[in-house]
Amino acid sequence: MKLENPTPIDWKFSVRAEQLQSSVIREILKVTQRPEVISFAGGLPSPETFPVERMRAAFDKVLSENGKTALQYGPTDGYTPLRAFIADSLSTSDSQILPEQIMMVSGSQQGLDLLGKVLIDEGSNIMVETPSYLGALQAFSVYQPKFVSIEMDEHGLIPASVAAKGEGARLLYALPNFQNPTGRTLSVERRYELVETCARLRVPLIEDNPYGDLCYRGEPLPKLLNMNPGGVIYMGSFSKVLTPGIRLGYIVAPIPLIRKLEQAKQAADLHTSTLTQMAVYEVIKDGFLSEHIPTIRSFYSGQCDVMLAAMKKYFPESVSWTRPEGGMFIWVTLPKHIDSKQLLDAALAENVAFVPGAPFYADNPETNTLRLSFVTVSPERINEGIQKLGRLIQARM
Amino acid sequence: MKLENPTPIDWKFSVRAEQLQSSVIREILKVTQRPEVISFAGGLPSPETFPVERMRAAFDKVLSENGKTALQYGPTDGYTPLRAFIADSLSTSDSQILPEQIMMVSGSQQGLDLLGKVLIDEGSNIMVETPSYLGALQAFSVYQPKFVSIEMDEHGLIPASVAAKGEGARLLYALPNFQNPTGRTLSVERRYELVETCARLRVPLIEDNPYGDLCYRGEPLPKLLNMNPGGVIYMGSFSKVLTPGIRLGYIVAPIPLIRKLEQAKQAADLHTSTLTQMAVYEVIKDGFLSEHIPTIRSFYSGQCDVMLAAMKKYFPESVSWTRPEGGMFIWVTLPKHIDSKQLLDAALAENVAFVPGAPFYADNPETNTLRLSFVTVSPERINEGIQKLGRLIQARM
Repeated sequence: MKLENPTPIDWKFSVRAEQLQSSVIREILKVTQRPEVISFAGGLPSPETFPVERMRAAFDKVLSENGKTALQYGPTDGYTPLRAFIADSLSTSDSQILPEQIMMVSGSQQGLDLLGKVLIDEGSNIMVETPSYLGALQAFSVYQPKFVSIEMDEHGLIPASVAAKGEGARLLYALPNFQNPTGRTLSVERRYELVETCARLRVPLIEDNPYGDLCYRGEPLPKLLNMNPGGVIYMGSFSKVLTPGIRLGYIVAPIPLIRKLEQAKQAADLHTSTLTQMAVYEVIKDGFLSEHIPTIRSFYSGQCDVMLAAMKKYFPESVSWTRPEGGMFIWVTLPKHIDSKQLLDAALAENVAFVPGAPFYADNPETNTLRLSFVTVSPERINEGIQKLGRLIQARM
Repeated sequence: MKLENPTPIDWKFSVRAEQLQSSVIREILKVTQRPEVISFAGGLPSPETFPVERMRAAFDKVLSENGKTALQYGPTDGYTPLRAFIADSLSTSDSQILPEQIMMVSGSQQGLDLLGKVLIDEGSNIMVETPSYLGALQAFSVYQPKFVSIEMDEHGLIPASVAAKGEGARLLYALPNFQNPTGRTLSVERRYELVETCARLRVPLIEDNPYGDLCYRGEPLPKLLNMNPGGVIYMGSFSKVLTPGIRLGYIVAPIPLIRKLEQAKQAADLHTSTLTQMAVYEVIKDGFLSEHIPTIRSFYSGQCDVMLAAMKKYFPESVSWTRPEGGMFIWVTLPKHIDSKQLLDAALAENVAFVPGAPFYADNPETNTLRLSFVTVSPERINEGIQKLGRLIQARM
């Protein structure tokens, strides 16, 4: 009952699929699995911060008490008590967020895909930061937009650049807090200006905020969402404050857009795991995150300090870098003539890894940049790795 | 810090999103939540079949012994031991399936979306059964194909119709076992002919098989996959043999296609929950499904018999219906002049629900058809509901 010598299929992929590529980061990660490699390349949160026992107890409780519901199909927009909890936590005195404005997704990456699917036509102008989050560039690319690169400086995205380039754009994608890849934060002054500019242009503003809670000092900065809930699409994630492997995030948006996203999600995967949503609700419903998040902040802040101190000690003076006030990343700018991709090859030969900066640019990449993550490497190995990197950079001066 | 009187956004959706609609079934399900409604409308498996305690123990074990790995990001193609287990279970003496040919997905629905994304361009011809699975029509529609309806009879899809219409098509989508919505099975004789026809046309053949294990008698029929592993894309799911709420399925395909699907999945949601995959592997790795599936078969078979007996007793003679040999659905054909959508309105007024047949057709719907599910309703209520339906049909003769 098996065909003999069938003609093999000559796979013809769709035009959109032809331009899909594997993430450079995921490719590098494959190389850096070896334990002897000191990897600053990952975007993974530290497993030391995972509340494993809490999660175990929550899955146990949900399956013991509510197993049949947790294991059955559920609504596309998500588990209602969890949506209500999130709505409540995002509301402020002058901007109330409703549960109906929230749709649960299988990680923020899915949010990006669904937003691209419903908002982008071939050739649509979409504005992104320079540099921007690689996963967003990938997700949006599938829908064949024209990327419009918006300028940034050390205070984040420059609103005047949005005003100059944004006419007729279909969206602006921004990561205002401890941005991936640069670690930069959009200043409070610019937040209002940015929201106002987008509202004037009538361009939806996507506020992607996976790292916002991981501020090393003080309280998280005000959200763009609360400045204009009718014009901002907010994306939240449990990956950095709880655990990433369960794939759980959410989109907050005006109701007409949420309805359309719900239809798109129904066609894309019906709904996100009922069990996962119920277990996460069980973990967070009594305020666990407000005890837990400070422990992550202080851990990451300490790791960041170690890396910054090592860079100061070992990197040549003509190298510059960001000093993040939260999150997981430092962005390094080398002298113009040093190509970070060539530097990576040399570094890998000495068992040190990082991510070259070029893939984070929608166009005109600055090839002398690179991203370092400090959260999963021990202080000793941070020192060792940065020292090696410093020597390799020095050799290229 | 809140904008005063911002201009509301006039949402502009993409062309593909404009044609998205909510599933008729999900809309009907909202109406049928009331406990007094006897609903034959759902496509939900019976929660009576969920191995809740097994699942609880598995999540507990994985989180106790391997929590940090289970809660961390994982590979896009899925958890390796689970992929190896599936490859092994699908291999036959003359067709070996490799773990590298398998990608885990967040439920089969995601498999349909990803296949549409990488295989369909606007205007591509894609062949579907008549009628076909609604969720597949929805998932593919997003990518704006031209549907080509292939004829069926009581032995399933007609290969000659594929031969006549399939030149240049980008894919054929088929559900050979206990099809949703008709409950029909593709005969063994036709399987080989179908695979051969597609191979000759060099058209990829998608074999969607969520119900294949739920055969009431004997063993599952031979898979199209094993007849031509180089030309068949197989989709499997844990929704009907374990539980659906965890959202776990898989695609089996030749490696060049799997690589492209992996890139698409990376952009779509990075990967499927590591924890869920590890827990399901824990549940099934020692052969649990071979004890568990027979209990589902015998339960569904009994439910099906009850409904068939009630239909014979209460439906007028001019009504015909399928006699499924497995799965969850019976397909009813009324006299031509009776519109099943109008019948539904009358039935809902008497607290009985079903799904009208029209939405299952890619084009030229037969409005005198309807789908009944028998798996979640008790025998008493099956009798009561079918009696009421019979009376309503009789009144329209």
